[in-house]
Amino acid sequence: MTSRTNGEDRKPRLRADAARNRAQILAAARTAFRELGTAAPLDEIARRAGVNIATLYRRFPDREALVQQVVIDGFTLVIEAARHALDAAPQDSLAAIEGFLLRLVDARDILVLPLIGGPVPTTREAVELQAQTALLLEQLMSRARSQGTIRPDATHMDLITTAALTCRPMPYLPTEQAATLATRHVHIFMDGLRPNGTRPLPPSPTHEELSVHLHAGPAES
Amino acid sequence: MTSRTNGEDRKPRLRADAARNRAQILAAARTAFRELGTAAPLDEIARRAGVNIATLYRRFPDREALVQQVVIDGFTLVIEAARHALDAAPQDSLAAIEGFLLRLVDARDILVLPLIGGPVPTTREAVELQAQTALLLEQLMSRARSQGTIRPDATHMDLITTAALTCRPMPYLPTEQAATLATRHVHIFMDGLRPNGTRPLPPSPTHEELSVHLHAGPAES
Repeated sequence: MTSRTNGEDRKPRLRADAARNRAQILAAARTAFRELGTAAPLDEIARRAGVNIATLYRRFPDREALVQQVVIDGFTLVIEAARHALDAAPQDSLAAIEGFLLRLVDARDILVLPLIGGPVPTTREAVELQAQTALLLEQLMSRARSQGTIRPDATHMDLITTAALTCRPMPYLPTEQAATLATRHVHIFMDGLRPNGTRPLPPSPTHEELSVHLHAGPAES
Repeated sequence: MTSRTNGEDRKPRLRADAARNRAQILAAARTAFRELGTAAPLDEIARRAGVNIATLYRRFPDREALVQQVVIDGFTLVIEAARHALDAAPQDSLAAIEGFLLRLVDARDILVLPLIGGPVPTTREAVELQAQTALLLEQLMSRARSQGTIRPDATHMDLITTAALTCRPMPYLPTEQAATLATRHVHIFMDGLRPNGTRPLPPSPTHEELSVHLHAGPAES
């Protein structure tokens, strides 16, 4: 091998190392945020990721950058699941909605920060992803309503609420049993979502109404 | 007034002051635990309660004593709501179950720590209250099953899961709108709880199975 070949080999390896470090830092951040809140010490996150604190700062200049990336990763996963459900909806929209919820329950370790109840997205990218999520989920629910597979008064707000509630960590339960309880909850919720002629739901706040408050900081305290 | 009368007056006033201090400390602890986790600084809790840190330590010798009292207050409220629902169950067990859930949603500021997902009760009193809660809720669900108002495969574990999920704080939402979303979720869940002949639920872990893990500390991380 010539030194030129070595040099060409090294660059992809460095990029691969950097990508692995980044992924390890994000995984450690999600665990630490879940256990200790978003105020978790950055050196604790670096320690859990097995990287130097300087490496952490090279990837994420401050806590906010790390928090926002975790938010973005969460929304990206939700959007993928929503697109998948929309593709499946023409055949069976009720199964598509349930599949969406169960897919999120399965991947809930990634969903530490997004959705209602998590910290507020503040970057332009996160806010756009949030709006896109709401749009895709309303398309999904709207298709199900027009197919008559769900009650006419259920909206994407109910889907977001349910995803947020069932995906929040239950840190004191073993993963498998927590997933079983969440799955039972999703099944019962799905049966309640059918158009079964019971009383109408109380009116839902709109996504826009909530977004105003979401960007104004914590309100319930 | 004689000094004797004064002395008799002072004791009840001192006891009233002590009770007020205690209630203020517990309210401040609930808010701080919700916002910052159970590692919230005790001097921050004293500050929010408007009392001296020495007063806090006089009422609660350490953090654990404060955490356990918040747990006990939560279970006490859940037990009251469960007894109320059991009293109402002979007339309409479905409405009694819904009333139980909505009562907890209404009082969810008190329910920061108990139920699945919260920290583990360790004192004998808290463990007994937890067992009592499970027993009362299974009586409630059992009565509803025998009346045929709920699906035969729903258990008190589903009720505990639902209460825990819907009562967890949504700190970034305004109280009223968070309550509306939780109420819609409870209504949909209740409709799913009816015996409507859909597929059976996946088998639930028992309360005993979970308790083993609950007392062994965090498992999902």
